[in-house]
Amino acid sequence: MNDTSHGPVGPTEQARAALRPLTGDAVRLEPAGLLGGWQHRNAEATLPHCIAQLDTSGNLANLRRVTGEVEVDFAGFWFADSDVYKTLEAAAWELGRSGGSDALRGFLADAAALLEKAQDPDGYLGSYYQVDHRDRQWTELHFSHELYCAGHLIQAAVAAARSAPDDAAAQQIVAIARRFADLLVQRYGPAGEAAVDGHPEIETALVELYRVTGHRPYLELAGLFVDRRGHGLLDDGRFGARYHQDHQSVRDADEVTGHVVRQLYLLAGATDVAVETDDAQLLQAVERLWDSALDSRTYLTGGQGSRHRDEAFGDPYELPPDRAYAETCAAIGSFQWAWRLLLATGRSQYADEMERVLLNGIAGSTAQDGKAFFYSNPLQLRTGHDGSHEDAPSQRLPWYSCACCPPNLARLMASLHSYVATGDDSGLQLQLYATGTFRAGGHTVEVDTRYPWDEQITVTVSDAGPGPWTLALRIPGWCSSARVSLNGEPVEVGEDAGYLRLTRAWRAGDRVRLTLAMPPRLVAAHPRVDAVRGTVALVRGPLVYCLEHADLPSTGPLADLVLEDLELDATARIHVAPHDDGIAPVTLQVTVRGRATGPAPLYRQLPTAGAAPAGTATVAAIPYFLWANRAPGPMRVWIPAAAREE
Amino acid sequence: MNDTSHGPVGPTEQARAALRPLTGDAVRLEPAGLLGGWQHRNAEATLPHCIAQLDTSGNLANLRRVTGEVEVDFAGFWFADSDVYKTLEAAAWELGRSGGSDALRGFLADAAALLEKAQDPDGYLGSYYQVDHRDRQWTELHFSHELYCAGHLIQAAVAAARSAPDDAAAQQIVAIARRFADLLVQRYGPAGEAAVDGHPEIETALVELYRVTGHRPYLELAGLFVDRRGHGLLDDGRFGARYHQDHQSVRDADEVTGHVVRQLYLLAGATDVAVETDDAQLLQAVERLWDSALDSRTYLTGGQGSRHRDEAFGDPYELPPDRAYAETCAAIGSFQWAWRLLLATGRSQYADEMERVLLNGIAGSTAQDGKAFFYSNPLQLRTGHDGSHEDAPSQRLPWYSCACCPPNLARLMASLHSYVATGDDSGLQLQLYATGTFRAGGHTVEVDTRYPWDEQITVTVSDAGPGPWTLALRIPGWCSSARVSLNGEPVEVGEDAGYLRLTRAWRAGDRVRLTLAMPPRLVAAHPRVDAVRGTVALVRGPLVYCLEHADLPSTGPLADLVLEDLELDATARIHVAPHDDGIAPVTLQVTVRGRATGPAPLYRQLPTAGAAPAGTATVAAIPYFLWANRAPGPMRVWIPAAAREE
Repeated sequence: MNDTSHGPVGPTEQARAALRPLTGDAVRLEPAGLLGGWQHRNAEATLPHCIAQLDTSGNLANLRRVTGEVEVDFAGFWFADSDVYKTLEAAAWELGRSGGSDALRGFLADAAALLEKAQDPDGYLGSYYQVDHRDRQWTELHFSHELYCAGHLIQAAVAAARSAPDDAAAQQIVAIARRFADLLVQRYGPAGEAAVDGHPEIETALVELYRVTGHRPYLELAGLFVDRRGHGLLDDGRFGARYHQDHQSVRDADEVTGHVVRQLYLLAGATDVAVETDDAQLLQAVERLWDSALDSRTYLTGGQGSRHRDEAFGDPYELPPDRAYAETCAAIGSFQWAWRLLLATGRSQYADEMERVLLNGIAGSTAQDGKAFFYSNPLQLRTGHDGSHEDAPSQRLPWYSCACCPPNLARLMASLHSYVATGDDSGLQLQLYATGTFRAGGHTVEVDTRYPWDEQITVTVSDAGPGPWTLALRIPGWCSSARVSLNGEPVEVGEDAGYLRLTRAWRAGDRVRLTLAMPPRLVAAHPRVDAVRGTVALVRGPLVYCLEHADLPSTGPLADLVLEDLELDATARIHVAPHDDGIAPVTLQVTVRGRATGPAPLYRQLPTAGAAPAGTATVAAIPYFLWANRAPGPMRVWIPAAAREE
Repeated sequence: MNDTSHGPVGPTEQARAALRPLTGDAVRLEPAGLLGGWQHRNAEATLPHCIAQLDTSGNLANLRRVTGEVEVDFAGFWFADSDVYKTLEAAAWELGRSGGSDALRGFLADAAALLEKAQDPDGYLGSYYQVDHRDRQWTELHFSHELYCAGHLIQAAVAAARSAPDDAAAQQIVAIARRFADLLVQRYGPAGEAAVDGHPEIETALVELYRVTGHRPYLELAGLFVDRRGHGLLDDGRFGARYHQDHQSVRDADEVTGHVVRQLYLLAGATDVAVETDDAQLLQAVERLWDSALDSRTYLTGGQGSRHRDEAFGDPYELPPDRAYAETCAAIGSFQWAWRLLLATGRSQYADEMERVLLNGIAGSTAQDGKAFFYSNPLQLRTGHDGSHEDAPSQRLPWYSCACCPPNLARLMASLHSYVATGDDSGLQLQLYATGTFRAGGHTVEVDTRYPWDEQITVTVSDAGPGPWTLALRIPGWCSSARVSLNGEPVEVGEDAGYLRLTRAWRAGDRVRLTLAMPPRLVAAHPRVDAVRGTVALVRGPLVYCLEHADLPSTGPLADLVLEDLELDATARIHVAPHDDGIAPVTLQVTVRGRATGPAPLYRQLPTAGAAPAGTATVAAIPYFLWANRAPGPMRVWIPAAAREE
């Protein structure tokens, strides 16, 4: 056992990985920065909120039914245990990051004790099946989520092992998870039944457990679970084989399809398997599927999943902004998968995608106070929207009947520092830009930035460490003009596959200043994205912007109009307002033309003129991730482009 | 009992109805016409296909389990009995229309005997509950469909009573239905439990049974079922109150919402109640809701339901063509509701809508051979569409796991002749145009037309009957130029609220020729319909046209392009090709510009030019209702409009 990772994904020394996560306590994000602020909010608000919800929503009571401590009805979905495990994982990462609070350590210890008591002698854990449905245990893997829950238990154990190897509760959780994992190896391993779970998750968990323990049967079982897909082992039920990722083998598939979270979790696991088994063919297949997702099935925010029905990827270019499902868990899955691909290949495109989905799709799912969440993340909310359904509420909700997303956010945010930088033999790579301290190979740098609000990033070498080494700075794909200076002097260095690489014998105090020019940009979608034809989106740096009702003019010629009445004058100058005192640190001031689009026939024969323009005004566009933090109301990312006046 | 209707909806003499359906055997459609051809196909293909499916899909076996004739598992959904009843209703209408075949009479007699044997002594019928789930009978009305099934049984009985009052099997079905209806009056009437069913249908059925029997408690119970909605009597479950139409009282609601078929069936029933109880307030509410549906929630084809998820109406102006659910049963429900509103008010807008949804949304759901059907009716199918899900197949399927639509089509088509014309004290109104014979008040006319392929309709008086009377000819809302001649001489007569009314002392042999000018039209949607911004649709007369892959050029500059690569040159002349030898009697020849839209970034920064035009070509657009009768492939109703060349 030589696992040195202190965050999610720790490729072994033998792994086919171009980059390595930073080791030990080599990273610290400062709360003053955006990402560090999110981690702080997560520790202070989201994680305690999740822990409290496990009580009020009955998840812990479900386990106490198993131990006989309480006599109540089972509460929630049959996979409710997974919420406990995800929260445990978040708590474990938080323990490693900050040392945690007494309350947090108490939660970990109590939960570990409860799980140990609830676990069957053979290692099985699953509160839904252990009390009322013993007869159905192991019999309905297509929908039971039994291995999905086991996977999340194992992920919690991995976090515990990496974060607090000496903590008694952490060790207890690892032991519980290993008992369950050993049972799975016995039951479904090479000598066992050829089965898979209807919801992937166990694959990546087992590889990670292998990395922590060095116990190779876990890796082998993960490989079996990946390669058993596409052989009709699952009862398709009414959702069909694609939903359950059993329609085709991962190696043969050309396109992402089916239930988005299932697809992404499976591909993350397949990537882990490919990396640890040096399986170039599998890695190639996984990268091909990533391309298929990014080429035609990803929202501008990085969200994925065009259909509420079956929570599915849609057809190519089917990307409706209003009915975007773009589940929060899918965005997290995309981020985690991209991280694995980045480590495997070193390609900057994966870090680009991590940045896009983190700062837009994922960030938008949490309210400013850290205690309310979106499950689906649409890119448009209409005037007259019916927000009564929890699938498409008008504002973030504190919890959900299927509460997979909030604790998923908690575990991501608690480990967010681990995703920001990487190392390799050449030195240190800054992948995301955040204020904090980063160390690799004995080299330490401090990053200071107001990114993404500001285009300047300052990197100071605080401990040069031995010999010459390379500081690699990712140049985001969106950036067409990056400048860098060293100790105040401009440095001429060409972009190398998405990075600026500065190699020298560094000295403590050396200061690199990177400027990523952030002029506001107008973006159009591929012409096959029918749903946003004739519209443009506003982007600045990595941030997608939107128009929200609260910023509409309350006086002047457009005072009586609604958001749908506004068209963007794409020829007018966009003004960056960096000191906005409203909801966002930086807004974009844009020129819109109003045109009353109220009562009129739904279909009209051409040529018929539309309503005459009512006038123009300047309005503020805000970052998408900050929408719905004021009174509920319409929002849109894709704004109709005003036709030239004739 | 003075019911004189021989078709669906027979307002009593006391009813608040502006128009009356034609009575007796006063209508006959000729198979040579489009509508008569559909009736013929229904009798020859669809209805026998449905009857056969009741055997192969296990619906009849479910009832034979109740009688103890077979020992098999229950098959299909818990409301599978309704498919039997709808098919029975279709068979009854067909018996009245054509006399039926021996096979059809045999089916009616066998089914009637089976139902009588299966019925509980107290009148209850419900094969799902009668065998395995007695303990749950009446306990889960929010989802049980028990009254929904009862409603369809009653509708079958109404059809039997009106079509074949002297037939023994018909009388048996009426007796069975009345026993169940009497049980419902006892159980849920004024002295019974205040409950409603989660799926409306019983309301309109009870009013119709009242019309057939004169038994007023049926009408009173229907009124109770309408007015009990919106009081939280239903367990909302995970679908919410709107889905089940329990969110608001019908009288107070401003907008259609929730599950579309539930909403439409409820409003049809509410209309029936309003008409029979002379309830002006309720009728006003229902008309207001009709406006809300037509103003912002109806597809160009007349289809309704923008969401696959929950089979629901969407937000206002949420009308995606690719993910249009537009369920066939919803289109049928819209047609049936519009018929009720037409009779109640005499307003031509309701007949306009009947025509639109019949010739587009409903017609498109059945394959040319009458043996395959769409459940959802999208307005676009993309290149690369995954048609593996039965919710969104690439072609019509012979049957569905939830097979509500095919027998619903069968009962509509078997009674289609009843919807074509109306009568009142002034004379006869032709509402839809179809070749056939129509009689009202002793006046008989014969209609000869190739409508909607041709713009000429010839009406010949074959039996003038007594005194002067008015022949009213509906001028469809889409028609801006209608001309009429009498015995070869032009007649100057102004349009009166949607009709041309010719009043005179008619003589046998008088010939009226109506010409409804049908120039091809380009149509645009309201600017709030984001999903089709920048596109136009092709319409001729009442028919919506579409482009389908099979008509794309296989030679020339566009030979390598896909449907998504084509833009319509909206300035070019559209040529009507009336003697097309392909799939459609009339195609529209349009000019398209091709532009390869293949591999390219999903999002691009502006200004960036798109692909250069590859050339232009003339392609055929076909009527929407005929799509997907060739090899499966892309189709679209809304076609991107080519920008002017600069």
